[in-house]
Amino acid sequence: VVDASLGEIAALLGGELVADPSVRVTRIGPLDGATPDTISFLSNPRYRSQLTVSHAGCVIVAPAMREAAVARGGALVINDPYLAYARLSRWWDERVRRVPPTGVHPSAVVDASATIAATASIGPSAVVEAGAEVGEGAVIGALCFVGANARVGAHTRLAPRVTLGERCSIGERGIVHSGVVIGADGFGFAPTEGRWDKIAQLGAVRIGNDVEIGANTCIDRGALGDTVIEDGVKLDNLIQIAHNVRIGEHTVMAGCAAVAGSTTIGPRCTIGGSARVQGHITLVEGVNLSTQTFASRSILKPGHYTGVFPIDDNATWEKNAATLRNLHTLRDRVRALEKSLPPAAPKPLDE
Amino acid sequence: VVDASLGEIAALLGGELVADPSVRVTRIGPLDGATPDTISFLSNPRYRSQLTVSHAGCVIVAPAMREAAVARGGALVINDPYLAYARLSRWWDERVRRVPPTGVHPSAVVDASATIAATASIGPSAVVEAGAEVGEGAVIGALCFVGANARVGAHTRLAPRVTLGERCSIGERGIVHSGVVIGADGFGFAPTEGRWDKIAQLGAVRIGNDVEIGANTCIDRGALGDTVIEDGVKLDNLIQIAHNVRIGEHTVMAGCAAVAGSTTIGPRCTIGGSARVQGHITLVEGVNLSTQTFASRSILKPGHYTGVFPIDDNATWEKNAATLRNLHTLRDRVRALEKSLPPAAPKPLDE
Amino acid sequence: VVDASLGEIAALLGGELVADPSVRVTRIGPLDGATPDTISFLSNPRYRSQLTVSHAGCVIVAPAMREAAVARGGALVINDPYLAYARLSRWWDERVRRVPPTGVHPSAVVDASATIAATASIGPSAVVEAGAEVGEGAVIGALCFVGANARVGAHTRLAPRVTLGERCSIGERGIVHSGVVIGADGFGFAPTEGRWDKIAQLGAVRIGNDVEIGANTCIDRGALGDTVIEDGVKLDNLIQIAHNVRIGEHTVMAGCAAVAGSTTIGPRCTIGGSARVQGHITLVEGVNLSTQTFASRSILKPGHYTGVFPIDDNATWEKNAATLRNLHTLRDRVRALEKSLPPAAPKPLDE
Repeated sequence: VVDASLGEIAALLGGELVADPSVRVTRIGPLDGATPDTISFLSNPRYRSQLTVSHAGCVIVAPAMREAAVARGGALVINDPYLAYARLSRWWDERVRRVPPTGVHPSAVVDASATIAATASIGPSAVVEAGAEVGEGAVIGALCFVGANARVGAHTRLAPRVTLGERCSIGERGIVHSGVVIGADGFGFAPTEGRWDKIAQLGAVRIGNDVEIGANTCIDRGALGDTVIEDGVKLDNLIQIAHNVRIGEHTVMAGCAAVAGSTTIGPRCTIGGSARVQGHITLVEGVNLSTQTFASRSILKPGHYTGVFPIDDNATWEKNAATLRNLHTLRDRVRALEKSLPPAAPKPLDE
Repeated sequence: VVDASLGEIAALLGGELVADPSVRVTRIGPLDGATPDTISFLSNPRYRSQLTVSHAGCVIVAPAMREAAVARGGALVINDPYLAYARLSRWWDERVRRVPPTGVHPSAVVDASATIAATASIGPSAVVEAGAEVGEGAVIGALCFVGANARVGAHTRLAPRVTLGERCSIGERGIVHSGVVIGADGFGFAPTEGRWDKIAQLGAVRIGNDVEIGANTCIDRGALGDTVIEDGVKLDNLIQIAHNVRIGEHTVMAGCAAVAGSTTIGPRCTIGGSARVQGHITLVEGVNLSTQTFASRSILKPGHYTGVFPIDDNATWEKNAATLRNLHTLRDRVRALEKSLPPAAPKPLDE
Repeated sequence: VVDASLGEIAALLGGELVADPSVRVTRIGPLDGATPDTISFLSNPRYRSQLTVSHAGCVIVAPAMREAAVARGGALVINDPYLAYARLSRWWDERVRRVPPTGVHPSAVVDASATIAATASIGPSAVVEAGAEVGEGAVIGALCFVGANARVGAHTRLAPRVTLGERCSIGERGIVHSGVVIGADGFGFAPTEGRWDKIAQLGAVRIGNDVEIGANTCIDRGALGDTVIEDGVKLDNLIQIAHNVRIGEHTVMAGCAAVAGSTTIGPRCTIGGSARVQGHITLVEGVNLSTQTFASRSILKPGHYTGVFPIDDNATWEKNAATLRNLHTLRDRVRALEKSLPPAAPKPLDE
């Protein structure tokens, strides 16, 4: 349990503390339901009404919210409350998280030719194969598989039950969640006489620094070259990254998104949940792809792109969908109407 | 192998047996392909034609089907044949399923501070960490990871290769299939100078009683509070439940569905396969979301909701999709036509 | 590292070698970036411009490309370059891939009643239960779970961390990637008094020969009969195959596709990524389902089928989606316009 004074927290985060610095908090929590021993924060103006009635001992707020926050109790006034919350959450986490013991658990199976840094931790029943390298402070969770000649950078953590395939690598300070599979074969076959002939996948996966990969996400190895995930990329759960894809730095992808083979996604893109990106195309830097949208062609201009059928009550949807099935006929009817009108009629607006 | 008399089965299920109670069956099977030693059932009227020609030794039917069933052989007449079949299937399963041995397998790694009930089973190479609790009759499958201070309720079964993260809990009589990840970090980052700063995920996952979770499904831990799955929820395979979501009791979700962060889904909802629910919204009790539909906003009225592009042959789809891309222009053209007509013309029906 | 002469490769693949057969190559690689010690190939005409400037020591090309290839260096001229590349890639892979040692790793837990062929390999910390059979030359990767009475055919490889459930089977020469779950319970419940009563899943999964299954894909066991995957099927990552599905031979499915229960997909179909097939329907042989398309009804004619909302910039999408929500009203307005016109006007083209 954390027990910290507001003075201590203000020293960590900066900003102006409008509260007794000796007051102690033992929880970080949302405004709603906060108690005097809770430190909370307000970043989304949508939750402003919760601020005035919150019993939190201290609320981290932006300067514009200073008055409203102070009117009800303690406040830490700071320019970016969300960023301050992020930092505080990590500081808090370091104090409560169980630190795995340094060294190799006796039940782990580590090949004699693997290189394990002195400060690394190899968990129970983990398997580390020949020639693999695990850096300083890195953690290989219980029941993980690290293939031959794979590399795990310093301070990177593999949660329990992760696969890092042969010759694949991840840089420093990464976080890989349970069930992730890095380096399965890409999906490549040559058609022949009604069958599919396997194309061996000879490449690997190279992952940069500060990358986080969500649970059960898959990143396939390249066919000839490598699949590449650049620095700072954040992937949510159950994402599919096919072979020879490249994801640019600081791009984020939400859960269940998928990228087909040989596609390049630029840096600082935002890919929505369950969105899908076609193979062999390019998305430039700064593309924002909406939830469930299928990018079927290259996108060469930064911006926000969408393609999703709007939800409706089922009866209304059925009527609209029925018309949609004949939409091109409807267009032809409109065109025929336009042609049938006298010359004074307005001209078509498109085509 | 099960070898049961019809009399024994009728005693279990109730209903009226119209058959020699001493006849024995050794299989439960579909009507189609059934043999005299098979017990079958008819619940979906769509399979009625299969009834009259089935060689099943006994068919479980509703009263309305009594005559048709008896005309061809034995019958067990009962009000809800599907429910009777469900019950029979479980009775059958108990007779054929391998029961894992009580106690801790010698290859498992169980922390000395974990509490394992005397009648629980810990499978080969499972890992159970400090402070974890495993209830009476619970089964932790081979190669599972149960994190520190996690709790598994009585008679809950974890199939092989499941992750139950630190401090996460599941109630009684649950079933968790292989590859499930409970308690990976939620996907939370604060943007800063073109990078993404991690928000530590300090909450946990709390799962009620009688919950079933399909293979490779992921349920993330909360950021501050907990992610909550209430009693009786059934989740299919490859589902994504993000942080701070709450799923109400007896709600079911089909495969590949996904719920984004901080959303509340009410009790007794039905979420179709590959459907997706936006973050920070609410679906009230009794919402039925169609397959592949994206619920982009709160749904505050029970009912059936849909948003999916209807399938067609590719050539027709291409023509309709091309028109769809200019749909607002088409609407403008219709409006122009309406305005150009003499006053006697009908007025627009919408807007 | 492979070091092969062009003569050796030509002997393997056939075709006409237009190069010094004693020249040696040590890499297979794409045209772009190839060095004189690289063998490359050209199959997609789209990359033809890369051919003329490639420094590859040898390029595998079709007869039509012979001149262009020879003008720049060595060439192997062959009828199907892509197929030749596939074969070469496998030959190459056999020379670089680490071969797992024959026999049972001491950390594996293999039941005494399991039958393990003499030339099979059981990896570290794998678990093989009672009555299971593992064929000649088969590989059970590290941390795999092979359930009671499951069967793995000769020369089939399970990558690390795979689940093959009780009584499930896979034929010969298969490849199963990390995280795959074969034989979890199908999703079957009978509704009763606002709750869901589990239907025990008594069937199994039967998989043919030459099947490849991508990472984290799930194939559920049947309720009464079996779920069946026929010979030569190729499944990509994160695919969901529900209970009692049958997939016909040589059908391929791309990543994140899903098939709901009791559906039959014919042989030689192509199911696009993130596509979804409704339950209890049939797709005949030779159906090509586009990416992200939902097959909501049976498809009884071979062909190419699509249903996906076209992507657009978000502002245009919003305007089109708004009109789409009232599409049936727009159709009514067009009909009203048609009726209001004098008899000379053209007749409606549909309905």
